[in-house]
Parts: sequence; C-alpha cells; structure tokens
Amino acid sequence: MRLNEKIEKIAGTRSGLYGKDFLLTWEKSMTDLNLVLDIAEVLREMRHANISPKLFDSGLAISNFRDKSTRTRFSFASAANLLGLAVQDLDEEKSQIAHGETVRETANMISFMSDFIGIRDDIFLGEGNRYMREVGAALDEGFEQGVLPVRPGIVNLQCDMDHPTQAMADLMHLVNHFGSPESLRGKKLVMSWAYSPSYGKPLSVPQGIIALMSRFGMEIELAYPEGYNLIPEIVELARENAAAAGGSLNVSHSMEEAMRDADIVYPKSWAPYSIMQQRTELLKKGDRAGLKDLENVCLSKNASFRHWEFNDEKLKLTKNSGALYMHCLPADISGVSCECGEVSAAAFERYRIETYREAGYKPYIIAAMMLANRFENPREVLGGIMKRNRLRVGE
Amino acid sequence: MRLNEKIEKIAGTRSGLYGKDFLLTWEKSMTDLNLVLDIAEVLREMRHANISPKLFDSGLAISNFRDKSTRTRFSFASAANLLGLAVQDLDEEKSQIAHGETVRETANMISFMSDFIGIRDDIFLGEGNRYMREVGAALDEGFEQGVLPVRPGIVNLQCDMDHPTQAMADLMHLVNHFGSPESLRGKKLVMSWAYSPSYGKPLSVPQGIIALMSRFGMEIELAYPEGYNLIPEIVELARENAAAAGGSLNVSHSMEEAMRDADIVYPKSWAPYSIMQQRTELLKKGDRAGLKDLENVCLSKNASFRHWEFNDEKLKLTKNSGALYMHCLPADISGVSCECGEVSAAAFERYRIETYREAGYKPYIIAAMMLANRFENPREVLGGIMKRNRLRVGE
Amino acid sequence: MRLNEKIEKIAGTRSGLYGKDFLLTWEKSMTDLNLVLDIAEVLREMRHANISPKLFDSGLAISNFRDKSTRTRFSFASAANLLGLAVQDLDEEKSQIAHGETVRETANMISFMSDFIGIRDDIFLGEGNRYMREVGAALDEGFEQGVLPVRPGIVNLQCDMDHPTQAMADLMHLVNHFGSPESLRGKKLVMSWAYSPSYGKPLSVPQGIIALMSRFGMEIELAYPEGYNLIPEIVELARENAAAAGGSLNVSHSMEEAMRDADIVYPKSWAPYSIMQQRTELLKKGDRAGLKDLENVCLSKNASFRHWEFNDEKLKLTKNSGALYMHCLPADISGVSCECGEVSAAAFERYRIETYREAGYKPYIIAAMMLANRFENPREVLGGIMKRNRLRVGE
Repeated sequence: MRLNEKIEKIAGTRSGLYGKDFLLTWEKSMTDLNLVLDIAEVLREMRHANISPKLFDSGLAISNFRDKSTRTRFSFASAANLLGLAVQDLDEEKSQIAHGETVRETANMISFMSDFIGIRDDIFLGEGNRYMREVGAALDEGFEQGVLPVRPGIVNLQCDMDHPTQAMADLMHLVNHFGSPESLRGKKLVMSWAYSPSYGKPLSVPQGIIALMSRFGMEIELAYPEGYNLIPEIVELARENAAAAGGSLNVSHSMEEAMRDADIVYPKSWAPYSIMQQRTELLKKGDRAGLKDLENVCLSKNASFRHWEFNDEKLKLTKNSGALYMHCLPADISGVSCECGEVSAAAFERYRIETYREAGYKPYIIAAMMLANRFENPREVLGGIMKRNRLRVGE
Repeated sequence: MRLNEKIEKIAGTRSGLYGKDFLLTWEKSMTDLNLVLDIAEVLREMRHANISPKLFDSGLAISNFRDKSTRTRFSFASAANLLGLAVQDLDEEKSQIAHGETVRETANMISFMSDFIGIRDDIFLGEGNRYMREVGAALDEGFEQGVLPVRPGIVNLQCDMDHPTQAMADLMHLVNHFGSPESLRGKKLVMSWAYSPSYGKPLSVPQGIIALMSRFGMEIELAYPEGYNLIPEIVELARENAAAAGGSLNVSHSMEEAMRDADIVYPKSWAPYSIMQQRTELLKKGDRAGLKDLENVCLSKNASFRHWEFNDEKLKLTKNSGALYMHCLPADISGVSCECGEVSAAAFERYRIETYREAGYKPYIIAAMMLANRFENPREVLGGIMKRNRLRVGE
Repeated sequence: MRLNEKIEKIAGTRSGLYGKDFLLTWEKSMTDLNLVLDIAEVLREMRHANISPKLFDSGLAISNFRDKSTRTRFSFASAANLLGLAVQDLDEEKSQIAHGETVRETANMISFMSDFIGIRDDIFLGEGNRYMREVGAALDEGFEQGVLPVRPGIVNLQCDMDHPTQAMADLMHLVNHFGSPESLRGKKLVMSWAYSPSYGKPLSVPQGIIALMSRFGMEIELAYPEGYNLIPEIVELARENAAAAGGSLNVSHSMEEAMRDADIVYPKSWAPYSIMQQRTELLKKGDRAGLKDLENVCLSKNASFRHWEFNDEKLKLTKNSGALYMHCLPADISGVSCECGEVSAAAFERYRIETYREAGYKPYIIAAMMLANRFENPREVLGGIMKRNRLRVGE
C-alpha cells in the first residue's frame, strides 16, 4: 500500500488520544491503539522516504529517567527530534528535585515551554504509575490556572505496572511480521519467565505484553516457576481482555510445556511479585543490609530454575520449530553476557536481527503517541506533511 | 492591547542592550529594563498565540552551571530553544576545565559557534560576577582577534551579587499583576529574611530584588534579624536608587513590623554576609571541618529566629490582609519540606499558583535579554516575526 | 577568492568519502583530504557571512566519549548543530552499556534515527580504533538487514592511533597560515615531545600529526627523549608518506637540535609507547596498585626531561626566531597550569591567540567530514546552499 493510501485509511474522526497522557495501554480503546500503530507506520515510512514530519518549530520534550536507560532514552530523543522538539533531561542528580510535595511544583517549573514529559519510574512497586498521575494532576492544574500555555502530554517510558512504549513497539513488530493486526488472532504467544543471574528486574514488560496482546485475540500462555507471579490484578485484566477478544490466557509452570506449538515466544526474566514488594519496602527504608539479604535469597531461589533457558531444544517444540523469538533487550545470553542466562547464544543469534528490528519500532511508537496527543485529527496532519513536501536531508 | 500595538509601542531607537552582557540590573538604564520587559511580554504572547519567534537557524547557547539548578536551567533551555538555539552544557565534571588562567582559554574553546553563554556562579562571595567578567573579557579578545565569528552574549544566571533573570521575572510578574510599571510607584514591598533550617543560601535574590525594585519608585522595606545583613554596597545602591526614583528603602529588624500595610511581601532565607565571607574563605581553603563548624554555628544562630516565618498572622498585617506573596522557589514550607521554615503551609498554598506564575516569566525574560543582545532594533525584529507568520506548532 | 569561486573550485567528481567512516587520515586519499579542507573552508566562510548551511531538518548526532573532553565535545556539537542535527550523548555512566558483545547491539539501538556517531576512545592501546571498526561493522549489518534506515557515519574523535579531527584542523590552520596546501612543501615541522608533570597522555596527537603532515611534502622532525617513542608502525608509515610526497621524516633526541630552522613547532607531552602498553594491560586487569606504581615510574622518568620545555631560547633557534607554535590545548604552561611544563608562559603567550585560531577550525573540519560522508557531490550541495540564501541569524 502506498503512503498516501495508508494515510487515507486512518480514521478521520477525532482521536480519543487527543490531550490524553499515555500511561497504560489498558486505558486506551482498540481504536486508539490502532491509531498509534497506523501513525507510527506512516511516520516510519516517511522517514525512510526522506520526508520530514517536523511539526514543532520549537518546544521541549523533557525526559525524566528515574532509572537507567539507553534504548528508551534514545527512542524518546529520536521521536522528539523527528517532530522538531529539543530534549531536556531532568536528572535528579543535577537538580534540586526532592520527592513528595515538590513533585507538583517541579512539574510546573519544567513545563513552561514543554510539550511532552517522558517518565521512567519503575523501581518501586505501587509508585511509578502513581508518580506519573501526580505529575499529570499538577500539569492539569497549571494549565487550568494559566500557568502553562500548553498542557504537556506525559508518555510512560516504563513504570511499575506497564511499559507501553515497549509493548506497543512489540505489537508493531508482530503486525509487520504477520501482516496485520487481524492476523494475530489465534496466534499462540508465550510470555515466559527465563533464568537470569540477576534480580530485581521489573515486572512491567511481561505485564505490558500480556495486557496488550490479549486484546488482539491471541492465545496467551504465561509461564513461570511457581512463586514467580506478576501483579495479580494485571493478570486478571489480561484474562478478561482475552475473553473479550475471543482469545485466551493460560498460566502454567513448565517452560517446555508452554513452548509447544507457540507462534511467538518472549522468554524474559523478572523478579517475583512478592520479592518486588519486599524490595520496595526495603528501598523505601533505605535498608541496605536487608536489600543484600533479599538479593541473596532471590538469586539462590533463581538458581533452581537455570533450566528456564530458551534454546534450540525449546525452539524445536514451537510451531514448525520456528516461533518468532522476542526480547526487549538487552537479553542475558548464556556464554555471552553471563555464564547461564535467559537464552542460549545459538538461539539468540538466530533472532538477533529480528530483536533489533523489534526495538527499531519504538521511536516511531513514541512519536505517534506524541502526535496523537497534540493533534486532534492525525490523518489531516499527516496528509498535510505529504503535501508540503519537506525533505529530512538535503538542501 | 493587541500584539501588534504592543510591538509598535516598543522604543524604535537603538537599544543600549545591543552587544552587551546582562550581568547586573544596576548597570542597565530604565529604558533598557523596560525594553526587556516589553520584549518578554511580546514573546510570551506570541508563544501563547502559536507564533514562532525563532530567529536562529542554528547556533549554540552554552549553559555553565557552577551550582545546582532546575528552574533556571530549564528557563535558559526554554529561552534558547524558543529562539532556535541548541543548548550545550558545560559541566565541569565531564570536562577538562580547571580554574584560573584556563578560564580565558575555555571561554574561547566553547564559543566558536556559540551565541550565548549563561553562567550561574553564586557560591563564592566576590567571585561569581568577577568570573563572568573574566569570561567576557576573554570573549572580547577572541572576537577582536578574529578567533570568534560572533561575540557570544553572557547572561548572568545568578552570581554572588545579583540574580538578574530572577529579579526581572519577578518585576514582570509585578507589572502584570498590578497592570504597569507605573502602577508599582508607591507600593510597599517587604524583602524579608525568613527562617530556614539550612545555611549558605545566597544573597543574590534579596540583593537583586532591592536593587531592581527600588528603581520603580517602590517603598522598600528590608527586614532581617540583627546580623543578617546583605552586602553593604548593594544596600546603599538600592537606597540611592529609591531616592532617585522617588521611593524609599528602609532597613528594620522585626518581621511583624515590616509586614504592616505591605502590598508585596518576599519572605526568603539567606545567610548573613559575614557568614558568607567566612564560608568563602573556608571553601577556597577546602577546609571541611571549618565548614562543618560554620554550618553548626549558623544553624544554631538561625534557630533563634524560627518565628521569622511568613504565615496567616503575618499576612493579616499586610494591606487589606492581602499582600502579594512572592518567592523564587523552592520555598521551605513548614510541615511540608521541613518542620519549620520560611512560610506556613496555609499561607504558601494561598499563593502557590501565583508563585508558579511568577516563575513562568523567567524563560521569556531570558529570551528577551538574548534578543536585545543580538538585534539592534528589537521592534523591527518582532514586527518581522509577526509578518512572516510562522507557526510554532502545526504543519 | 570569493565564496562562489571557492565552491566552483571544489572537485565535482564523486567523493571517495561518500558513505565512508573517517577513522584514520592515512586511509584517505589526498583528493579526499583536500576535499575536507575545501568544504571546511566554505562552511567557515558561510557562517561568517551569516549563511546557514543547514542540511538536516531532523536527525541525531551521537557523541560517545569514552574519555573526557571539552574542546572536541563542543566541536562535535557545533558541527552537528550547524548542519541541523541534535546531539545525543551516550554516556556509559547513565546507560546500560557494557563491553564486548553488546557493542554490536548498542550500535544499532542508538542508531535508528542517527546520522552520525562521534567516538572518542583513546585510553587503551590497541582498543580505540578497533572499537570504532566494531561499531562500524555492526552498523553495516544493521543497515544491510534493514534495521537502520541510514548507515550512520562514524567520526573518530580520537583513538589510540590517530586524532584525525585534530590533525585535520591543525592542517587547516597551516594552510590558512601559509596560504595553501602547496606552500607547506619543504617547510620544517618539529613534532617534539615536551615535559609534563603528568603521565598517560595519549599518543594519538603526535602520531596523527606526523602521519598527516608528512603527506604534504613537509620536512618532519620527530624529537623525543630516548625511550619515548610512538607506535613504530605509524612512524614507519609517516616515513613512507614523506618519501612519497618528496619530504622527509627524521627522528632525533634533542629538543634544541630539532628546533633549528624550524618553520613550525608542535611541542607536546606524551607517554612512551612501552608505558602505554603496560598501562593498557594494567587497566584491563583493573590493577590499581600496578597503575599507581607505573605512574610513579613514569613521572620520575619524566622528571629527567624537565629541560624539554619550549621557551624563548628554543624559539630563537627556529627560522628567523619565529616558527609557528602549535598545540592541541590545553597546554601545560610553566608557572601557570603547573610549576614546570611543556611551554614557558612567555612563549605560550606569544602564540596564545594562534592556538585558539588553530582550535577554531575543528568544528568546521568535523562538519565537512559529515557533509562529505552524506552527500555524494559536495560542490553541488554547497552551491545549492548559496542559492537558497537562508540566513543563520535573522527573521
């Protein structure tokens, strides 16, 4: 399909994303999710065709990373730049920012000329998403009171509950791999825990995956060793999504069993919910000794599940021995980044380029979220970009 | 008044700010100060009206923060971005910069494609402003010798003597609050010390406020506990300003007395001048034990003045129990950011949004300083922006 | 010569730099080196004439500094900005980047919307340049596999072997100082070791200088105390270059002798090759005690060569007592930045402004490397910029 046709196909009705933060995929309608996918695809093709979709002549996109990041940081910076915004980092080390009541003030202080704030806050269970909403409420007030000329949109760059830019980029990868959102119906996706010699990995990726993919009629298999469960409410929500979309969600506890006939596999480590709860309490107290103890407990518990490695034997169990392997990267690769990890070197190598491709959708997903937040009628805006014919590179 | 009329009203004569650094408000004429206010107001309205005042197609604005900052950092970044400049941070941690003789060299090395350098250097008494002038002299030489294609303008983002972008933003807030610069004449402004459980807060804000506001015919009351005085020369200068402008400056030592019939109150903590002098010597020597001792002395001295808190009782003493409360933020709020601080939670809450609004002028003040530095005839430039009709957001 | 004539003079044939990384000057043809010089000169004059050579409407330039930098960091940022790119830093402290196998992945993850990656990696002998090639190979793969829409060009911002942006900027300085590349033929350039009270200074500057300048028919004198040699292969290569270009390369061990009749002198400290080799091994092992020991050995060895200071006595030995002094900055200046250093304060002061001018070419050299990497026909592109008549500053 040609670019202009793809734009024509986009729903011309007022988007439900207009003026709304993107915090959790499950707060968004199917129409809205499809809109993000469509816009992202158009932006991606525009860039490949050397068409500049710049929409802002000036303006800031604030990045607030309360945890480390390379991939998402660069994706956010890329998306902002593509649309014409400059990135300004809000690093707490180099700022006067504290917590609690000052959130409200800081949210306004950084937003006088900001169009977007991207936030990663995934360390404390029960905190990250709440923090984003606190920022959002402060921005609402600032805008209503005339303090801010624009209400900056918030993009969740990973919280304790969801990682929507990752999950949406993963979805876009699946759509492009299988051909359409409709083609995902009935596909078996295995979101599986995998062994890693580390602890404290957030729950947001597996939660985000099951909560989003379940809406597209997929057969979701959530597999993990006993005790490594996710936040129960989110699993329940994914189950309901699946039922409503004509798919299913099943929880099981054997990696081998789970892999049988899978179309897509997503083997990834995470910390058990109960460990994350304890860790959150210890982090809040600043209890270093307790944290060290918990780490040891967790790592020795992990060690019982070294066989939860995705490898060629597991791959052979999947449909036609050829399920699509996915990972949010970086993966813990056995013999490469660690002695024993989430995936064997041979299995990873088979899909390495696919995982790069998967990651490559994220900048466009973020740019699409931004565009849909600020423009009431994305189709019209994208059509206008085509007409004006501005090059990204060239004099 | 409409935007075009506001632009017409701006003095069309060559600005005294053209090609000059903005280091101290008291080096600038009333015409120049009013010009900055006028430009800032026009830029603010342009942005609200989605008109892009971009004037640079490329170029760097260097930020050199030798002390922590969030608000001013974002204001500088916003101003630069609004005009089309990219911000490049000069962080001494990530650079090979030393002190002394290398200032001259570094000033040139960072300026080959720079249009502005914003500097915060407020820790050492007698150093910050001097450092800015040293940088300025190096830039003068570099430009005269043909090393630099442009002489970058310096914007003082806070020094040991003045905080001109803060004071000018505060002035803009007063002008918009009361209606005009003329309406400030005869208003009583109380610049009062307030209690804080910290020490070493710079003198630049109170000094900047009294030195600037005194020029607009206000009745300035400078109140602080005995011994908490500011740099004497600057108080003297403010006194002369007041006399020349038909206002007054009075020093007193009771917060309650000072507040009576005030139109505007600015309760804010600062360290006594003598402490800052001792602190500067200790910092230069790197005497950590001495600094700790000084901190203790200062904090215990502070503790005698816990009643210097601005609260509803104090507010009742002001004109119609409704003086405008100002603060440069973040304020030490009793029961919120500390047990006992500069302002009660209730009093702060009444004016919280007003303080946000106050802060919101700073990006436009900085952008106005930049514009006036680089363009000989701001009225013409602003008129040109109106005519070209370039949108900030939109395809 | 006027700007349009200078552009006309540029070779209109397809550039050998198109699509190629700039890693070592000795991999580039004379035609290519001259092309970089010509483009840099045109860009410099354009900027002085307020003509904006912006060629990118959006896009990122990634800076990856694995060692400290101010000058080169600002030069890279300036070049990127001049052409329309936003700089995004890849700081390993604030990222999840490890070494080894993850290089390949990270190279792709940061490049989805990147046009250039500038890399400084000069600490480990045998590593820096290799690392850049590893990144390059990963980018090749990502581009070929359709992961990356553009193959970002790599600019070597200093490695263990060469410092091409420095050497090319130095060359541009010589060309402008003496009038033309041809005028350098037969000039005597002394690349001399000089004393410094520090250790571990990279070899890349002296290596880069002798390897590049030898190609322009200069008489190169490489002088250093016995034992302070450079990487032998690069000295050999410079010798061959010199022979091929009708010049010479001579190694000697007396600063005084070397200076006689010099046209150009470049006195600069570096660590002996053998020390750098040992240091690399110790750094790899993380052997802190060993590193401390090595530092002491090296410093005490250095101390025997305090008389290797460039000063007015040495200057008198040069041609007409007036050789051009060069330095990549910052220099260790006796009595200024250290007790006893590379150059006396008096001698440095004579040439201080010249060293600033020398440094000032670097942003244009980097911009020229970028332009030549991305545009097949630089003459046409530069001609197009002249025709479109876009101002850098002004509404």
